[in-house]
Amino acid sequence: MINYPKINGLIAAVFTPFHPDGSINPALVSTYADRLKRQGVAGVFVNGSSGEGMLLSVEERKAMAEAWAVHGTADFKIIVHVGSTSVQISKELAAHSQQIGVDAVGCMAPCFLTSSDVDVIVDYCQQVASAAPELPFYYYHLPVATGAHIKVNQLLERGSKRIPNLAGVKFTYTDFMDMHQCLALQGGRFDVLHGHDEILINGLVLGVQGAIGTTFNFIPEVYHKLMEAYQDGDFAAARAYQMQSIDIVTVMLRYVNAVVGGKAILKLAGLDCGPCRTPLRNLTSAEWQQLEQDLQKTDFFELLTESRLVGL
Amino acid sequence: MINYPKINGLIAAVFTPFHPDGSINPALVSTYADRLKRQGVAGVFVNGSSGEGMLLSVEERKAMAEAWAVHGTADFKIIVHVGSTSVQISKELAAHSQQIGVDAVGCMAPCFLTSSDVDVIVDYCQQVASAAPELPFYYYHLPVATGAHIKVNQLLERGSKRIPNLAGVKFTYTDFMDMHQCLALQGGRFDVLHGHDEILINGLVLGVQGAIGTTFNFIPEVYHKLMEAYQDGDFAAARAYQMQSIDIVTVMLRYVNAVVGGKAILKLAGLDCGPCRTPLRNLTSAEWQQLEQDLQKTDFFELLTESRLVGL
Amino acid sequence: MINYPKINGLIAAVFTPFHPDGSINPALVSTYADRLKRQGVAGVFVNGSSGEGMLLSVEERKAMAEAWAVHGTADFKIIVHVGSTSVQISKELAAHSQQIGVDAVGCMAPCFLTSSDVDVIVDYCQQVASAAPELPFYYYHLPVATGAHIKVNQLLERGSKRIPNLAGVKFTYTDFMDMHQCLALQGGRFDVLHGHDEILINGLVLGVQGAIGTTFNFIPEVYHKLMEAYQDGDFAAARAYQMQSIDIVTVMLRYVNAVVGGKAILKLAGLDCGPCRTPLRNLTSAEWQQLEQDLQKTDFFELLTESRLVGL
Amino acid sequence: MINYPKINGLIAAVFTPFHPDGSINPALVSTYADRLKRQGVAGVFVNGSSGEGMLLSVEERKAMAEAWAVHGTADFKIIVHVGSTSVQISKELAAHSQQIGVDAVGCMAPCFLTSSDVDVIVDYCQQVASAAPELPFYYYHLPVATGAHIKVNQLLERGSKRIPNLAGVKFTYTDFMDMHQCLALQGGRFDVLHGHDEILINGLVLGVQGAIGTTFNFIPEVYHKLMEAYQDGDFAAARAYQMQSIDIVTVMLRYVNAVVGGKAILKLAGLDCGPCRTPLRNLTSAEWQQLEQDLQKTDFFELLTESRLVGL
Repeated sequence: MINYPKINGLIAAVFTPFHPDGSINPALVSTYADRLKRQGVAGVFVNGSSGEGMLLSVEERKAMAEAWAVHGTADFKIIVHVGSTSVQISKELAAHSQQIGVDAVGCMAPCFLTSSDVDVIVDYCQQVASAAPELPFYYYHLPVATGAHIKVNQLLERGSKRIPNLAGVKFTYTDFMDMHQCLALQGGRFDVLHGHDEILINGLVLGVQGAIGTTFNFIPEVYHKLMEAYQDGDFAAARAYQMQSIDIVTVMLRYVNAVVGGKAILKLAGLDCGPCRTPLRNLTSAEWQQLEQDLQKTDFFELLTESRLVGL
Repeated sequence: MINYPKINGLIAAVFTPFHPDGSINPALVSTYADRLKRQGVAGVFVNGSSGEGMLLSVEERKAMAEAWAVHGTADFKIIVHVGSTSVQISKELAAHSQQIGVDAVGCMAPCFLTSSDVDVIVDYCQQVASAAPELPFYYYHLPVATGAHIKVNQLLERGSKRIPNLAGVKFTYTDFMDMHQCLALQGGRFDVLHGHDEILINGLVLGVQGAIGTTFNFIPEVYHKLMEAYQDGDFAAARAYQMQSIDIVTVMLRYVNAVVGGKAILKLAGLDCGPCRTPLRNLTSAEWQQLEQDLQKTDFFELLTESRLVGL
Repeated sequence: MINYPKINGLIAAVFTPFHPDGSINPALVSTYADRLKRQGVAGVFVNGSSGEGMLLSVEERKAMAEAWAVHGTADFKIIVHVGSTSVQISKELAAHSQQIGVDAVGCMAPCFLTSSDVDVIVDYCQQVASAAPELPFYYYHLPVATGAHIKVNQLLERGSKRIPNLAGVKFTYTDFMDMHQCLALQGGRFDVLHGHDEILINGLVLGVQGAIGTTFNFIPEVYHKLMEAYQDGDFAAARAYQMQSIDIVTVMLRYVNAVVGGKAILKLAGLDCGPCRTPLRNLTSAEWQQLEQDLQKTDFFELLTESRLVGL
Repeated sequence: MINYPKINGLIAAVFTPFHPDGSINPALVSTYADRLKRQGVAGVFVNGSSGEGMLLSVEERKAMAEAWAVHGTADFKIIVHVGSTSVQISKELAAHSQQIGVDAVGCMAPCFLTSSDVDVIVDYCQQVASAAPELPFYYYHLPVATGAHIKVNQLLERGSKRIPNLAGVKFTYTDFMDMHQCLALQGGRFDVLHGHDEILINGLVLGVQGAIGTTFNFIPEVYHKLMEAYQDGDFAAARAYQMQSIDIVTVMLRYVNAVVGGKAILKLAGLDCGPCRTPLRNLTSAEWQQLEQDLQKTDFFELLTESRLVGL
């Protein structure tokens, strides 16, 4: 088994920019990447759920991966999500990721005719991971969306015998017992990236060091301060920063879901990534107005001003 | 709106034949089609859930559609399922279906980031249906797998204003109130194809005339007799045939699910479509043995003998 | 095993009348029973879900059972529901039912810490049924509310070896495969009472002869005509009556649930059973108005006029 | 509103002792209470889910509450759970609790015909809490069992205006965002008692100070050490203690559920509380053997030896 270095800090689960006509707009990625780098974000997770990856064609996914790949640096990791309902497609995307030279691939369980049998999911991951053998492979645990209700610690344990490039997991679920078991497994060799921004602190206490999240697109500063306060042992401050995040997440989730709400908030934060694609729907003008009003009751606009990013 | 003739009789939800190495085997389709025609089956539903359609690449789906298209006749309809998680892919497949000249397309709701908002699903269907405007479009209602818990009668009603080629629904759910409402809608103009073999009779009483099913691959005779008995008003006989089907379906579902179990039973019925693709898994030899024993407690092998199809 | 005669016709799942202060009002039962008898209803199911049975104290349940018991006749069966979260309470209620001389008891699976292991539920039923050994015992299958997702045909089969007074099932679920298996079991000796008014016809085709329902409280005539038409082989008419029922059920379910909506509709039909008890809530005046308007779009008020029951 | 002192430390969710014939055995409570006191447990939660409270009759629940009440001291709090499917029963039990002089009452949402409308649950709680106005009232949040999927922070906020004796919540769910919001509400005045032993540490980081749990019946020492290590800032040690707990919880949950598995483990720890009541089932002898073997792979028996409680 390969021992990869762990990813520290915040990975933004980036949105896919679309033109008004609904076609992808990879040209915006350059601006997007600059912005995130200036905010101290440690990298991006491309074509994930926030990125509407499963809603794109294979060619579109490759185009987006390529658009981001060129912005990768030692301090700005590019992780490409390759999950789909077809292992064939996922393998093709994984091979492409390796070929264009990104830092890692992530893959969720297939969401159609899926299985909660951990051996089945290990097998699936093994096939996909073997198509990009030179890249670290992260399992993307999102059971609420995929229906694959497995224990990730079992997947890591059994997978470690069959998948040499198994690096860890993007853990987007509230089963902290399982997360703890993942972190404790095999001397702590697996990288567990926390996928729920609003409960980041509940993972920090288990030793989590990195996270992948939607709100890191617009308020990474809050989480940087949260993690610093936590490291300094100032828990009251850490909790207060987490509550800032919770207030904004609560608003975000009120607008269809994290993708639709999050993309809308990023536009209010100065970066317009265009509409969402069906089956997501776009907000009505009444909803846009309400969203702004809801955000005004949080610290969102103060945070924007502090970050000096508005209008970039 | 276009008024299409309804489909009568049994449409087999065909399996996708694979080579032992896991690649698709379209060459087997000719044998498969002949066999179904001899059994009096009225057509096929290609690349659906039984066909592992969502588990194939786009190219593989096109290849399978083409392999079946050439066997279409006035008495043997070819319906191609084009649903996916990406409207872009579904549109491409729908356009391809029209181009190769099949009889209809079917499309399930996207299963990732899906919605139970009927307007969202109408919108999705409208985009896909418009890519194959010359073909009748069937919504494939499979909420247990897609998570799109809508009322189909609302989809048909609202969709009829926006989708000229909306023909009906493959209804694979147990909400008979909704099915009844679909059948009663707009003077009964929509074609409701029953998707649950084991409860076909419960739809016949509502006026259903056609069905799409997995077990029509191996025991269509049972359902032909069921429908005849029903038409003749011999309900006791109709129920008895339905119970024959129930006994076999009960066994089938015991082996992972209808796809894995069904494909295995078709092999025992003389047509070997090869392995299933991940995330489906294949039966162990112990399971194969048990499956045969379980079937021996049903009428399965007697039915095979009567149908004179073994070994074809 | 005892072979009981089956129940034919419609059993109303009666509501529990409350005074405005929230205490039970058993004095109304006499009027209620007269009304149902005049409408040709074959009996009542007391303290079920429609009757808010689980929301009452043990003493209140006994009082309601006693209030109904005195109205029992050969043509008007009294079935008392005794299910609870405590087998101790259920046994006490079953014994009381036998003591006061009703026609049968019904019992749902306990809904707290419940089990989908059929042997566990058989065991539970055995304990309750043995407390009223002289009464036919009906299992009340309501998995959506109890969480006991068992196959009733397995319960009947295994239960028949251990519960001499096991008579059948009130089947309130859409699994018609299971219902068919129940009806076919042991030469059809079990009584399967259909518990979903809006899909009654889908059970008739399997041979169902009796039903227990909420809407039989106010529009039994529709179902009498439905069953007659069905017996006469006039399926078009039977379906049309079922659609009348569906239209009214659709409205009913829009108002919180079948209990709240149903009780409100019965009030509009001339019998005021008072408020519902928490956790049910009562309609606002705006909702009452809307309910009337919604019903005006159905045949409800015409049916009332025909039944000559308004104001009784 | 009343400002109650918060509960610190560990409250054992005690099992109900039964005689072999299935009747309750309140005489064992004295031994049980002594044992817990010697282990430094801060009190008990009586007639909760672990206590099979909903499976008892009203008289049995009162008898158990009385048996525990006499053991209450300033350092050993008695909290009695009064939830049921009937607000009438819950009010009667709450009034009884006040009358016999316990420290607090807890109440879960009714699990039959329940609601996820927070106002409905507030209303329910208000009725129950008003029957014991002199006792602090704790909402017991157990949505997985009750089906009441509300946000507790909303219940506390709205409830605080209508329920003077609303003290807090027993929070048995993994929604740490909601838990965080509960703790931050109104200057932190509500008492949030953590109800998931295996993820206690994930609540400590939010400021939780007390917990109610099943495994505190047999391994409270582990959690005492966990909490101390956490207070000392030794997170590595705190995590290690949590992993000890996780290993034992993992075994416990393998044996039907926490009640059956937990009661069995307590017997192995030296206190035999007898069988469980239906719909719970008891372990077979093969399962008892396997349970012991499974526990031998954890630190369980070492912990027992250290605690010097075996055979008490």
